[in-house]
Amino acid sequence: MANIKKIGVFTSGGDSPGMNAAIRSVVRTCAYLNVECVGIYWGYQGMIKGDFKLMNARSVHNIINKGGTILKTARCEEFRTKEGRKKAYDQLQAAGIDAFVVIGGDGSFTGAMIFNQEFGFPVIGIPGTIDNDIFGTTFTLGFDTALNTVVEAIDKIRDTASSHNRLFFVEVMGRDVGHIALNAGVGAGAEEILIPEENLGRERLLESLKRSRSSGKSSSIVIVAEGDKTGKNIFELKEYVEANFPDYEVRVSVLGHMQRGGAPSCYDRVLASRMGVRAVEALLEGKTNLMVGVQDNQLILTPINKAIKGHTKIDKELIRVSEIMST
Amino acid sequence: MANIKKIGVFTSGGDSPGMNAAIRSVVRTCAYLNVECVGIYWGYQGMIKGDFKLMNARSVHNIINKGGTILKTARCEEFRTKEGRKKAYDQLQAAGIDAFVVIGGDGSFTGAMIFNQEFGFPVIGIPGTIDNDIFGTTFTLGFDTALNTVVEAIDKIRDTASSHNRLFFVEVMGRDVGHIALNAGVGAGAEEILIPEENLGRERLLESLKRSRSSGKSSSIVIVAEGDKTGKNIFELKEYVEANFPDYEVRVSVLGHMQRGGAPSCYDRVLASRMGVRAVEALLEGKTNLMVGVQDNQLILTPINKAIKGHTKIDKELIRVSEIMST
Amino acid sequence: MANIKKIGVFTSGGDSPGMNAAIRSVVRTCAYLNVECVGIYWGYQGMIKGDFKLMNARSVHNIINKGGTILKTARCEEFRTKEGRKKAYDQLQAAGIDAFVVIGGDGSFTGAMIFNQEFGFPVIGIPGTIDNDIFGTTFTLGFDTALNTVVEAIDKIRDTASSHNRLFFVEVMGRDVGHIALNAGVGAGAEEILIPEENLGRERLLESLKRSRSSGKSSSIVIVAEGDKTGKNIFELKEYVEANFPDYEVRVSVLGHMQRGGAPSCYDRVLASRMGVRAVEALLEGKTNLMVGVQDNQLILTPINKAIKGHTKIDKELIRVSEIMST
Amino acid sequence: MANIKKIGVFTSGGDSPGMNAAIRSVVRTCAYLNVECVGIYWGYQGMIKGDFKLMNARSVHNIINKGGTILKTARCEEFRTKEGRKKAYDQLQAAGIDAFVVIGGDGSFTGAMIFNQEFGFPVIGIPGTIDNDIFGTTFTLGFDTALNTVVEAIDKIRDTASSHNRLFFVEVMGRDVGHIALNAGVGAGAEEILIPEENLGRERLLESLKRSRSSGKSSSIVIVAEGDKTGKNIFELKEYVEANFPDYEVRVSVLGHMQRGGAPSCYDRVLASRMGVRAVEALLEGKTNLMVGVQDNQLILTPINKAIKGHTKIDKELIRVSEIMST
Repeated sequence: MANIKKIGVFTSGGDSPGMNAAIRSVVRTCAYLNVECVGIYWGYQGMIKGDFKLMNARSVHNIINKGGTILKTARCEEFRTKEGRKKAYDQLQAAGIDAFVVIGGDGSFTGAMIFNQEFGFPVIGIPGTIDNDIFGTTFTLGFDTALNTVVEAIDKIRDTASSHNRLFFVEVMGRDVGHIALNAGVGAGAEEILIPEENLGRERLLESLKRSRSSGKSSSIVIVAEGDKTGKNIFELKEYVEANFPDYEVRVSVLGHMQRGGAPSCYDRVLASRMGVRAVEALLEGKTNLMVGVQDNQLILTPINKAIKGHTKIDKELIRVSEIMST
Repeated sequence: MANIKKIGVFTSGGDSPGMNAAIRSVVRTCAYLNVECVGIYWGYQGMIKGDFKLMNARSVHNIINKGGTILKTARCEEFRTKEGRKKAYDQLQAAGIDAFVVIGGDGSFTGAMIFNQEFGFPVIGIPGTIDNDIFGTTFTLGFDTALNTVVEAIDKIRDTASSHNRLFFVEVMGRDVGHIALNAGVGAGAEEILIPEENLGRERLLESLKRSRSSGKSSSIVIVAEGDKTGKNIFELKEYVEANFPDYEVRVSVLGHMQRGGAPSCYDRVLASRMGVRAVEALLEGKTNLMVGVQDNQLILTPINKAIKGHTKIDKELIRVSEIMST
Repeated sequence: MANIKKIGVFTSGGDSPGMNAAIRSVVRTCAYLNVECVGIYWGYQGMIKGDFKLMNARSVHNIINKGGTILKTARCEEFRTKEGRKKAYDQLQAAGIDAFVVIGGDGSFTGAMIFNQEFGFPVIGIPGTIDNDIFGTTFTLGFDTALNTVVEAIDKIRDTASSHNRLFFVEVMGRDVGHIALNAGVGAGAEEILIPEENLGRERLLESLKRSRSSGKSSSIVIVAEGDKTGKNIFELKEYVEANFPDYEVRVSVLGHMQRGGAPSCYDRVLASRMGVRAVEALLEGKTNLMVGVQDNQLILTPINKAIKGHTKIDKELIRVSEIMST
Repeated sequence: MANIKKIGVFTSGGDSPGMNAAIRSVVRTCAYLNVECVGIYWGYQGMIKGDFKLMNARSVHNIINKGGTILKTARCEEFRTKEGRKKAYDQLQAAGIDAFVVIGGDGSFTGAMIFNQEFGFPVIGIPGTIDNDIFGTTFTLGFDTALNTVVEAIDKIRDTASSHNRLFFVEVMGRDVGHIALNAGVGAGAEEILIPEENLGRERLLESLKRSRSSGKSSSIVIVAEGDKTGKNIFELKEYVEANFPDYEVRVSVLGHMQRGGAPSCYDRVLASRMGVRAVEALLEGKTNLMVGVQDNQLILTPINKAIKGHTKIDKELIRVSEIMST
């Protein structure tokens, strides 16, 4: 049986909406269960430096609806070394921290897993990333919010696209996976959605745009995931289409970092609150090296090594829906 | 094997965000699969009157992001009578409509089921209601959007609550079920959430508010579902608290009908698009008397009589999360 | 010539969006001009108790976009007495505060003016109220934001109103003045706007609604300012219309306190920033007993007694525009 | 005295939020005053082709809150030729159109002025552009909305900037003028604002960023107007700062076309409604070759040639406010 009296919590890697709600949940669950809770600033970097602060239920007042992370976040090279991890361990020991909850993506989880293997230190992960690319959970924290941010931006772009009968290429986040592109593309009513998992070629894109125009559509939105390989990049794709389809005015918009921020959606707030409770409970039950996920609207625990190695697959049904919708 | 050549689609009962996205999906799926599609205006009332309009892919241009329903909606007494249903059947026959997709809640589904029993007419339901009270689907269309609307409104109310150290009672929709109250309450960081499924008594509420104040909280938000029975209504609850806890300034806010409107969230748009495809496909596969639902992020089909009779249950885990979060 | 070395700042009365931006501006202008700045919590009540905190440029980090007021606000009976004001003066003297900037409405300004008369204490006002009812400024802080909040809520209500062909009565803030109702009513495309400054009678309203319906409008929104006297209140108005115009389904929505909160609009943030600079500068120039206002997009100073006694008038041109728009 | 019986209305040049509200106002004012109103599609291009449609009060139902323009918009080379304008005149004559209201920017106004000079055709302009660069009006239609869009996007970017202690360069619209950059920069709490009207040099920018960092600021936002000349472009500016200030992680975000779209703010809706009324009235009063503007919250009329030739000046007071606020 575990004897956990003080739990650390931190965020790591790229930030995502809902991280603050998850921090709040971890802190308040600790308070509720009479366990001490320590905020670790700047992720693994702050762990190495001992950048710790004791937190109570009031420390996380009014943050459930704030984007970003009050504990800050960073990527940390030093933690990739044995020496770095040893320093971190010493700091945790010195501060009396018995276990930690890490909120982040697969890089952050890999660090936690190795740390656990080396020092037997209890760790639980909460998947915080807008990319939805973590195995073992249907949704990651921040994905739902990012989708809303993207469709709201594209709704605005569509106003100007349809006023001018223009074609817009809109780049959204997703270096390796097309979940944001595919879902936001369907949600925004995009004509075409280009994702890293599929490369149907730029000729097919051109054909599709021509067919769409001749069917009476006056304006079009094409969503392009960052990591898509149809063109070298979105700007060259634009040039290709302009060169081969001259009667269409083409514009490019790269949505960029605003996709990471903003007040989390209700869904992300609730999911974060639930996951924080489960993470603390799991540690107190003596569990370790697991990630909290959601499946069929129930919380589940997955071994971190599976969460990292598994691959999320693009949804074939949704690709088909997107094709039908652009009829 | 079914021989469906013309499909009707309509919305019925209270409107919800995502209904237009579902209509668009049904219409475009028909176009994609070379089936004719007819919009039926004003629900069953329009069916009785033959208020029909042939729709094509362009008819549903630019509606995916609009609240409400372009086909209008109504409640219809006449359809509850055998004569009314016979008139409706004759109109559908005269127009050559072979099957229909009904987007609505359980009242609308009951009508469809009886209609199917009486005339052997193929029907498929899509659950469109903000209340999330339909069995056979984890989420109904509009629920996610309504939650976002509610938390955004409460975020605003919290600004003024915390500036004045006030206690706010906020009424949200939910006559019979507390799903909106419970989820939006957790999402908005409410101190207490009062739902129809649970009545813990107003004395307990008072104790909780006093404890919360003495623990250092300066302002509080209490979410009250429309159908909650803790007080006779939200205004009497306010008076009771004021009388028994005089040092707290109390205010009431009834969010009302704005909860039904607004641009649908990305989630609701995607779900509506997926459900529309599945509904049309199911009819073409010869299926009938079923509702399309989502479970574990997969679409499933449930017999309409089960969808109506089954009861959605309030989530015990989420009630516990809400208690812990208000620590 | 003034010799001001330490300036107090506080918010008083009802909160409004932009108050935090104004606090931030006062604090940073003091820092920029090497004057000390003290935040006074809870308005005049905190002044009497000496609830002070020294602030620097970093104290107001990340608040420009937050609704409410980090300095809290209250109404204070004790400050209406000579004794209360003497206590406040002693506290200010003890803390070495030489002058103050009050952000609030006319009640707050009246207190400041009397305080100035009694103790010769330098005071400058910044108009912070959503009601836009202060003489000497075209716009008060928070008015623009509140208008956006109201039209966004009514846009949502319109979705459901037009899906059901309903008539909605929507109550907005404005006990004595109809500025919110009139502007938001025009902005939301309301059929009728009922304001305290005009009572044309409920018979005329009924005629107008009937005319509007017969002209082909299927749904209608009527905006009612809190202080309107056409009916006893909005619920009786509803009953009157239902009794006399039975074929119209009528609903009521009271928008309530959400109108006071939320992230301020860009306009309110800029105006607050400008007013804060001018307020501090005016004190350092030896000016007192003035309110900063905006007129023709320029900042102006008005004697506080004029700001209080003057009356803002409802805009006849805008009433005419509202009539034409509901054609 | 004018004898105007049929008025044309169109949008021209880049679209801006509020154009639909202005179209609605022109159409409804015509209906109210018993003048016929014709919508001209695609600006001058549609005028040349006779792309006209008679409009009544119901034609503009539910568009007050929509971005873009239902009449579409375009730039038109042919109208720059005498022949093109003659064709347009013949089309207007053939359709019995006696006068027109043009909603657009200075390019569109120049066309109208020349057309008026050549054919004595009555024209009135309404300033519709997000850039706020038209002389004779304090605010153009769409400027207020664009500012809100920009600050909301930057609020999101700030979440991620401050979670990572990053420096962001954010590009906003404004090729020749810095009004959006300056106002949104102050509204978003930007550290630095770079506008076309001022080029203080990149060395000074670097100094300012270093000073700001050493004063304890952990993250910074720099707003760059499209037309700024401090660097060759925003990406080179980023490289320069990275090269010379290596301990700062720098990111770039180009907000792009979403700035032109979206539901107009209440202010823009009201202003559009007022301007539409005044434009029609002015034509009926026999006036011509004027632009409707707003000054000191009153509508004024300015000769179009002044509106085009005059220069809007950047506000020195606001530049000073921006400096003080970034203390």
